This record gives sequence, structure tokens and C-alpha cells, in this order.
Amino acid sequence: MKTIKIGMLGCGTVGSGVWKILTERQSLLEERTGCRFELRKILVRDLAKRRPCDPPATLLTTNAAEILADPEIDIVVELMGGVSPAISYLTKALEQGKKIVTANKRLLAERGGEIFRLASEREIPIGFEASVAGGIPILRAIREGFVGNRIEEIYGIVNGTSNYILSGMTERGIGFEEALREAQGKGYAESDSRMDIDGDDAAQKLAILIALASGRAPELKKITVEGIQKITPFDVESAKRMGFVIKLLAIYKVRGDAVEARVHPTFIPKSHPLADVGGIFNAIFLKGDAVGPAMFYGQGAGMMPTASAVVSDIVAVSRVEKESWRIRPVEARYLPPDDLVTEYYLRFSVVDRPGVLAQIASSLGSHEISISSVHQYEQSVDAKVPILVMVHAARERNVRKAIEEIDRFESVLDRTLAIRVERL
Amino acid sequence: MKTIKIGMLGCGTVGSGVWKILTERQSLLEERTGCRFELRKILVRDLAKRRPCDPPATLLTTNAAEILADPEIDIVVELMGGVSPAISYLTKALEQGKKIVTANKRLLAERGGEIFRLASEREIPIGFEASVAGGIPILRAIREGFVGNRIEEIYGIVNGTSNYILSGMTERGIGFEEALREAQGKGYAESDSRMDIDGDDAAQKLAILIALASGRAPELKKITVEGIQKITPFDVESAKRMGFVIKLLAIYKVRGDAVEARVHPTFIPKSHPLADVGGIFNAIFLKGDAVGPAMFYGQGAGMMPTASAVVSDIVAVSRVEKESWRIRPVEARYLPPDDLVTEYYLRFSVVDRPGVLAQIASSLGSHEISISSVHQYEQSVDAKVPILVMVHAARERNVRKAIEEIDRFESVLDRTLAIRVERL
Repeated sequence: MKTIKIGMLGCGTVGSGVWKILTERQSLLEERTGCRFELRKILVRDLAKRRPCDPPATLLTTNAAEILADPEIDIVVELMGGVSPAISYLTKALEQGKKIVTANKRLLAERGGEIFRLASEREIPIGFEASVAGGIPILRAIREGFVGNRIEEIYGIVNGTSNYILSGMTERGIGFEEALREAQGKGYAESDSRMDIDGDDAAQKLAILIALASGRAPELKKITVEGIQKITPFDVESAKRMGFVIKLLAIYKVRGDAVEARVHPTFIPKSHPLADVGGIFNAIFLKGDAVGPAMFYGQGAGMMPTASAVVSDIVAVSRVEKESWRIRPVEARYLPPDDLVTEYYLRFSVVDRPGVLAQIASSLGSHEISISSVHQYEQSVDAKVPILVMVHAARERNVRKAIEEIDRFESVLDRTLAIRVERL
Repeated sequence: MKTIKIGMLGCGTVGSGVWKILTERQSLLEERTGCRFELRKILVRDLAKRRPCDPPATLLTTNAAEILADPEIDIVVELMGGVSPAISYLTKALEQGKKIVTANKRLLAERGGEIFRLASEREIPIGFEASVAGGIPILRAIREGFVGNRIEEIYGIVNGTSNYILSGMTERGIGFEEALREAQGKGYAESDSRMDIDGDDAAQKLAILIALASGRAPELKKITVEGIQKITPFDVESAKRMGFVIKLLAIYKVRGDAVEARVHPTFIPKSHPLADVGGIFNAIFLKGDAVGPAMFYGQGAGMMPTASAVVSDIVAVSRVEKESWRIRPVEARYLPPDDLVTEYYLRFSVVDRPGVLAQIASSLGSHEISISSVHQYEQSVDAKVPILVMVHAARERNVRKAIEEIDRFESVLDRTLAIRVERL
């Protein structure tokens, strides 16, 4: 039986899960793959530190060269996180001809172009399933399952923390802060959960999804990003009354010769399968030109789901000797945010007196924004009255300008909230 | 650039879709894979027949040997359907060392053991993604994405016709016959849709799913199968009132050292993601010991979704030279249907007079079946009164015996309907 020798960089939560599967499921893996997978060396920062798993002390090292320069090691598995020094380790591993598996979304989103280019020049297989949506084999689906498709649209719920918060607000009517504290209490959110809430984590994953769907290097900076901080229980409730649910979506669309890439809270129809994805779950809904609509659902984080994805990559790269996959050297043309055209939910906070709605409607009209419905509920908050306006597809530039104008009206009390609507 | 030469057996709907993708998406495939895929020869029954695609006449042949004996051909793609002569063609192709792609669920469910054994002895890659759930890359997910997992449970909606019928009955309150005619009218169901409605088609797909999940040869005959013919609008409505939806599920469960394998209409909670899978869509919900719950959703049939799956297999087998995957030579122990333990929905049709319910309850009790709730609606159909009884988990043998006894009561007018309940 062939033995595949593995060097692992990092042994935190996910690394411990990988150790667990490779040792506890060894005979299952042998039976299924015909190969023995041997974890030969593990790079750690501190030999004495307690970790969730307990590999023999002889496996541990604090010297990366013991993995990167060992000619016996076939696959380097990077689970350190962060860009540096991970990127220099991965670069060295590729230069040594080693196959690579990484779960490092930030590294791939920010520097994936370099890594993919190097791997592809040397025809070295590289796996990164765990970098997006944890245990859900979505990258494999896009790269292999839909290889004959042009992927036209992707809508992903790819951040468990923000989905937990929005689900709590939707299902139990609690506020943003309370939902966040609850997520932190349950260990779903870090004490610093800025990356989750402001959409940056989802944007990193979207950059990787787009790279696979479009065959081009990831371009994190081209993605328009908005977080969920401004969503109030009132918006969640209003969405419900109109037949919608608010989700933080990572969106990719091919539009002629350009692409759209954005992460933001989104009104989606209550009847859409993505609307039911609750709690910390992740889901990716996409449309391919041959396969039509498809959706993948599962746990996007956590020790064992993520380790499951890492192990699947270890097996996958072990099966292929030369990878002929290519990232195209051409850049995609990203649609400038100003040119984006979507429907909107607009929440205005106004003084309760006649004529305000007319003033708002007139401003919208003068910016070529057409109203589809107006909802004014009797509840008044601090003597403010919320006016909700749903507008037909409008150009983002126009919406922004109209809101700037409206927010200067004396009768408008707070900054207007705009949430995009996707019918999917 | 490496050229992969393909011989295709059969050129009906799916074959035409494959032709379409391989020709229209040629440059996309080259860019993504670094290989050129060349359809070299197509076996057809009738050279003159009109087909959905129009390949050059020089590609067509009525002589299978022109494909099977051509040493240039790398991959044989079998899209003929039926067991014979497809099985002898596939056997010959494997003996010639050719890689194989097939969409033939019946062949694999009935004779997969032979094909898998031959392929595995010779280490030849074989792809059959299109045989289950059309465009959904579920086999790839189980075989590769969850390779580090023990798959503990699978619940699949894998027959589009029966799901269309049940969805129509649920969403629009129409009857079974009307929903079936509608499905036939829309081209979703064959004029002979017996295989769809009686669960046999779903059972074939389940046999293949189990083979991958368990690593053993498919055993179609071990699967307990019931169709959806007996479901009435009244049952659908009753399910709804109790918070359930009725779906035809293909179910696999590991239970200690035995496995359960069954296809039948099932009460599932309305809140479960499978409950929302409507129309002709397919979905597979599964639980892995590392990844936890996961679900895959998409179109289970149709020319382009199925062709998309075939093309993904063509690319996948082209990437691997030697397949080390093994089907274990040991047979799984299938739990005998009598030993199955599930909750049940029981619909009794009785004469409307005092004491009948007591009589039924007493019979259930004497067979160790414990009632969880009783629903008696006032509507009387042809002077019959339906009594609905939900029972706690009970042994199938006992349920069967109790129903036999109860159906002999003078006050019981029709045969009792029993539908299993899964909480998932």
C-alpha cells in the first residue's frame, strides 16, 4: 500500500481535528483510497502548549525546515492562518515540489494569485476546500462538479456568526447587540467579531469562490462590502411583513463582459431555500448555464467539519500527480459599485407631518428611481415615524445621490438606511 | 495540450447535451483543465434518426467495436440505458483498459458489483455522477468531499416525478391522479411512470448512494420499497395540520453493525430543509460523523443538468491514471424490514359509532404500540370516519400485525394506511 507522507503547519483546533480523523479513521481511509496517510511532522509554536489533540512529542517541531526541506514529505498542510509567515512556507513548499492543502482564506483572498500561479506553473495540485464554508464541499462542486458550466450567479451565506445574529433577530425578535452577545456566549463568535459582522470574512470567501468560478486570481479589493451592524429589529420585522428575510449574502454575477462582486445584508424572498438557512449554518446557492440552480448546505465552521474538508483535500491532491488546472492571467472587469442596478428597501426616519412623503417621492423620481410600494406603520419611535419605500431596480449612483439629498431635508431625522433586494 | 479521446455509446437526450457542452464549451474546458476533449465516435442504433443534436455523420457508427476496440479511445461514455447490451459493452471497455463514465442507474443498481469489481481490479477510474440526482454532484461529495467521514444517515428526494406529484398535492390540494396527469403533460413524467411512482427508480438511486457511503456493492433487492399511490389529499392535509409534509424519501441509516435501506412516503417536519424541496427538484440530506448534517439541492433530471454531470465525470476520470478506490468484498447486513423501528401515522377508516377508537387503541396496545396522539376530524367520507393515530417508535412487525388484526374488525371499513414518520 502506498504511503502518503504529510507535514502539517499548525496544530490548533482544525489541526487537531485533522489529526483525529487521520488517526481514528485510518483504516476507513485506507479502505476507501488504497493509501496510507501518515502525519510525519507537525510545526507548532510552543512544544509545551496544551492542545485539543495529543500527538506523540516526537512528531512536533518548532522548525519549519523540518517539514519544508524533508524530501520524504509529499503534502504540506497549512493550518496556521494569517498571511505571514504562512505565505513564505507555502511558497517554499511549492518550490520543493510539494503538494499543498490550506484552509487559509485570508491568505488566498489576499495573495491567492501568487500561490495559484506558482502551483500552476509547476503543475502542483493544491487543495483549499476548508477555506470556504467549512465542511461543505462547494469548491470541489464548482471546480469539478460544474466544470462544464459557466457559473452565472453565486449567492452565499458564508459567515456563520452574522447568520446566527440575523436568524436570532428574525426568529426571536431580539436586537443586534443581544444576538451578538449570545453568539459570543455560545462560542460561535470571537470576542472580536468585527470581521464577521462587517462582512470582511464573507468577502474573503467570496473572492475565493469567484476565483474558482471565473478562473481568475482572487481580487479581494474589488468586492463591495457592507456589514449587518445597521440592521434593526424593525427592519427585520418589516422585511417579514413584506414576505422577505434579511441575510448577509456574498454575491457574484456575470453581467455581459463584467462581473458583480458584493457582500451586504440583502432582502431575499421568504420562500427561497436560502431564507431557511438558520443559525450558524452556511449555504451556497448558484446557477450554472447547464445545471441550472443548485444549493449546498452545511456547517461552515467548527473543528470537525473543517477538518473533514482538509482531509478531503489531502486525499484529493494525493490522487493527482500533475495538475493541469489554470488560473487565467487576465483580470476580470468588476462592475464599479456606482453602476450596480438593484431593487432597494429604503427606511426613512421622518417627522410625522403632511408632505414629507411627497417630498421624498419627488426626490426619488428626479433621480430616476421608481417606487414599487410604500409602507408607513403607525408606530412612532422617539417621535420619529419610519417610512419604508421599496423601489424598482435602480442604479446605485442614483440611489446614493437621492439619499444624500433626502438626508439633508429638515423633516428627515436620521440617516436613511438602504438594503438591497435580490429576487434570486 | 493533451487530447482526451472519447467514445460515446448512445446519443439520445443526455448524449446530445454532452455533445453540446463538449463542443460549445470546448475552450472553457481547455482553459479549466488544460486538456482537449474530443468526441471521436458515437454509437447509435439508427444513423438516419433525427436527434436533439447534430454531430457530423462521420462520427456516428452502429458498430460498437469501432469504439470498444479502438486503442485510441481513452474514455467510454455509456448513455444507452438498460442493462443489456450496456453491461457487455462496459465490461469489454474495462477489459480494454478504457476509463468509463456511465449515467445508467439501473445497470449500476442491479449489476454494479460486477462493474465496480472489474474496474477496481484493474485500477480503472469509473464515473457515474449522472446516475443519481442528475446535476447535483452528490456522488463526488460522498466519495471525495466526505472521504474522512463515516456517513451515518442519508435522506434523499431523488425522484422528480413523485416529488412533483406530492408537491402539487401539498401546495395546491389536487389529487394524485390529477397531479400525475399534470406531470405527464409537462413532460416531467413518462407516459409509463410506474417506476417513478412505485419507488423503484428511487430505490435504484439509493442502492448506488449506499454503495458509495458503505464502500460495498449495491444490493437493490435488500431495499424495502413502497410507492406514493395510496397517498390521498386527505393525508396530505392531515400531515400539514400536524406540522408535517409528505415526501417520497430514499433512506439509509447505519444502525450498529447493520444498515437500514428503504424508500417510502414519509412524514417529515415542515421546518426541515427537505420539506421545502418542491416540484421536480431533488435533494439529498445526509449526516457524516465529522461534517455533521449537510444538504445538496438541484435538478435531478433533464438534458443539460444530467449532461453537466456526465461532463464532470469525463474530466474527473481523465485526471486520474490509476484508481485506488475499492469496493469492499464483504456484504452489509441489512436490517430485515420486520425489525425496523419508526414512528407511524396510521389512518383508519371506521364506522362512526362509540367504542371503535377504544377497540383500535386496545389492539395497538396489545402489540406494544404506544399512541402519541389521536386526531378525529368531523368530516365523514361516504359515511366513513377517518381516525388518525400517531404512534411512538414501534417495531414494524408489530405494526403490521396490529393492522392485520384491526382491519378484520367489523367497524373498520377500508384497509388501514400506515406512513412512516422521520424526525431527521
